[in-house]
Amino acid sequence: VRLALEEARAPYRDVTRTKSGMASMMRMLHGVKEGLCPFAPPFLRHGTLVVAQTANILLYLAPRHGLVPSGNAALLAAHQLQLTVADLVAEVHDTHHPVGTSLYYEDQRPEAKRNARSFTKERVPKYVGYFERVLEHGGGPHVFGRRLSYVDLSLFQVMSGLAYAFPRTMKRLARSTRRLRALRARVEERPAVAAYLSSERRLPFNPDGIFRYYPELDI
Amino acid sequence: VRLALEEARAPYRDVTRTKSGMASMMRMLHGVKEGLCPFAPPFLRHGTLVVAQTANILLYLAPRHGLVPSGNAALLAAHQLQLTVADLVAEVHDTHHPVGTSLYYEDQRPEAKRNARSFTKERVPKYVGYFERVLEHGGGPHVFGRRLSYVDLSLFQVMSGLAYAFPRTMKRLARSTRRLRALRARVEERPAVAAYLSSERRLPFNPDGIFRYYPELDI
Repeated sequence: VRLALEEARAPYRDVTRTKSGMASMMRMLHGVKEGLCPFAPPFLRHGTLVVAQTANILLYLAPRHGLVPSGNAALLAAHQLQLTVADLVAEVHDTHHPVGTSLYYEDQRPEAKRNARSFTKERVPKYVGYFERVLEHGGGPHVFGRRLSYVDLSLFQVMSGLAYAFPRTMKRLARSTRRLRALRARVEERPAVAAYLSSERRLPFNPDGIFRYYPELDI
Repeated sequence: VRLALEEARAPYRDVTRTKSGMASMMRMLHGVKEGLCPFAPPFLRHGTLVVAQTANILLYLAPRHGLVPSGNAALLAAHQLQLTVADLVAEVHDTHHPVGTSLYYEDQRPEAKRNARSFTKERVPKYVGYFERVLEHGGGPHVFGRRLSYVDLSLFQVMSGLAYAFPRTMKRLARSTRRLRALRARVEERPAVAAYLSSERRLPFNPDGIFRYYPELDI
């Protein structure tokens, strides 16, 4: 979501990173405000509209900022890919939390290792193979051809996260991720994205995030 | 998706249940046809358009069949709820497959039991509590008030699945799921839904589906 806003140079406020921002977020989750409450972060407030669920937020933002080709077919195609990215990200989360979100990683290490074995061996190759075919199909360099869309930004984020969390696995898959790696490099060089990545607004990957580097899970 | 089509009395063909339907589905997944290939089933073909990802298919169908209030805000709100339903369904799947989709349940029983403990104790109450608040907020009996939407159909499906897979857990939560149970009963009685449920088109819950009844996981 931040990448989309940054690429569009849309002004936004990352509320939980401001003073009293966490309290403000909790108020929204507990429904003090009017309207439909989100189940969980992230959510976007734009005027009186509150939109939750990452893919839904991007569905809302993208047409407003020229980050998806026009027309309903492209909107649905982009969203389909974004939801597939979301599935992959959920599986990344499950590698370190296969038993339960409420437990620490340290309390589910054997299960995590078993999950990560099948994730690195089967699931990552299946997902990256799929997205490579999508890039090939579109003619490149982006998902929808010459013009960037928010799906490219999401693929950049996922490829960056996978390279951080599973460096050995991704090195092993280097030859079968040529298009994705070229896309990642291309997105990284976009002026607005580059400015964002080198700013304090960019949250570095870290051991509390979804993408975590645990060498024992990079099998 | 089937519930939405049935409630709308829209003609459809459930291709994988026809002769040579599985082969037809595999051809689509492997990209013999033109256009964006789905990563996985389910997907809908309507003319030349192919839409994958359950929530995305419903996003496409609902406005065409009067299954969501008009306006962009309602479309986003409904989709947000559908994506939250999808998250819950994914967590249901993880109870019996916490280690890997490619392994049998029998090869991940201890991990499944640990996952199911936190799922039944923490996650189900959290999700149903959220959806109860949504129903309360809308004034009932449906998510958007007096008129049925596809989100109500999805909540019907989830409540039916949870009652099948986790009967003890759901009995324990009976008092805190009053609105959801009333909604389930109401949806079940709708003429088109009732006709569908008693037909062969309805796939009964079964040990190969997402909702599975393993007594040892109903903690």
